[in-house]
Amino acid sequence: MSESVEAILARLGHSLPTQPPSPAGAYKAAVAHGDHLYISGQFPLRDGAMVWKGRVGDTLSVEEGRQAAALAAVNVLAQINRALGGFERLATLLRVDGYIASAPDCFDQPKVLDGASELFAAALGPKAGHARTAFAVTHLPLFAPIELVVTAAIEPA
Amino acid sequence: MSESVEAILARLGHSLPTQPPSPAGAYKAAVAHGDHLYISGQFPLRDGAMVWKGRVGDTLSVEEGRQAAALAAVNVLAQINRALGGFERLATLLRVDGYIASAPDCFDQPKVLDGASELFAAALGPKAGHARTAFAVTHLPLFAPIELVVTAAIEPA
Amino acid sequence: MSESVEAILARLGHSLPTQPPSPAGAYKAAVAHGDHLYISGQFPLRDGAMVWKGRVGDTLSVEEGRQAAALAAVNVLAQINRALGGFERLATLLRVDGYIASAPDCFDQPKVLDGASELFAAALGPKAGHARTAFAVTHLPLFAPIELVVTAAIEPA
Repeated sequence: MSESVEAILARLGHSLPTQPPSPAGAYKAAVAHGDHLYISGQFPLRDGAMVWKGRVGDTLSVEEGRQAAALAAVNVLAQINRALGGFERLATLLRVDGYIASAPDCFDQPKVLDGASELFAAALGPKAGHARTAFAVTHLPLFAPIELVVTAAIEPA
Repeated sequence: MSESVEAILARLGHSLPTQPPSPAGAYKAAVAHGDHLYISGQFPLRDGAMVWKGRVGDTLSVEEGRQAAALAAVNVLAQINRALGGFERLATLLRVDGYIASAPDCFDQPKVLDGASELFAAALGPKAGHARTAFAVTHLPLFAPIELVVTAAIEPA
Repeated sequence: MSESVEAILARLGHSLPTQPPSPAGAYKAAVAHGDHLYISGQFPLRDGAMVWKGRVGDTLSVEEGRQAAALAAVNVLAQINRALGGFERLATLLRVDGYIASAPDCFDQPKVLDGASELFAAALGPKAGHARTAFAVTHLPLFAPIELVVTAAIEPA
């Protein structure tokens, strides 16, 4: 990658947190083992605060949901950066599961989750390729509108 | 396998789509890396149309849910077939997660999901072995009654 | 580990089932392949009976939910023990997904899931390290209050 992930994010109006969100319990933010990196669920948190709360199709529009998805994706990148000491050892994203707190009549989860997929594509280029699943849920911990669960392939240490 | 997957499916009244469902956003239908294949969530789609819609225990019976699960499983097989150019490189299914849109008083998710597990067993024989989890959800994207998320082991290319 | 998993569990008031819960359908309780072990969703079952039922924040308190999470974690350990013939080949837990049946106004899923993470930490020591995600769901199969989905790294056979 000629342009750094940090520079791409800055161009998109994001900054890569040097202190990504800490675990909310007795677990790890990310576990690297062999050629896999398993990352704990990430929320649209910035500086410890949930930037959006509630449900898409209810308190949030689809466009706000997309922005929340993009911020959760930034936190995924921050976890990768901290776990691997940069992005050089990242081979590719493998699986992105997106859980979207949704009003009962909202079926736009794929559109919302594109906010994350498109940010990954912009920041990681060919390393962004991932299988994906979108879910509608009634609510999430911390009133979050979206939670992203990502597994990645890495070069073994 | 002496009988081909296509022949087994035909005997069960299914056909293996040569064009499996396309991604509904900025992601890939399947990602093969090392000895793993990660497949995006699959729905009971046929020729681009959702064959069943709604919730089990509400607009769908458990038996209809089982048929929907079998069709989603056919689409999983179609994704494997396209990603690997056949089934020879498939080592085994590893994990099958089944998300079933369910009425509040419906607890028959394992019975519904057996529609998928039994189709995998018929089509793949000993390669079908998988760990499994059944989930009840209030609704799914596209009004789908079921979504299957499958990870498989493969022979590296 | 100087003290056995069985001894640690006994000290905590648990016993490791020699016959862990059987699959409720056409699948396997666990699949070991290469350096991964995939375990089917585990419930707070003891001797075939669901010890707690219902939803946290409704029929169950957060503390009861934590105990249910710990019992589901014991069943995860029982599956590992049976699949690997002990814990020597376990390298580390990789991912723990916890699905908690929750009242609409309950956002304490991380606290509930700590009941599982803390039991893993006590029983497995440094091998317990895992990425984690907590989910709120409306209900689960068998009226279960919690379901744990665990993937682990193992030494290949």
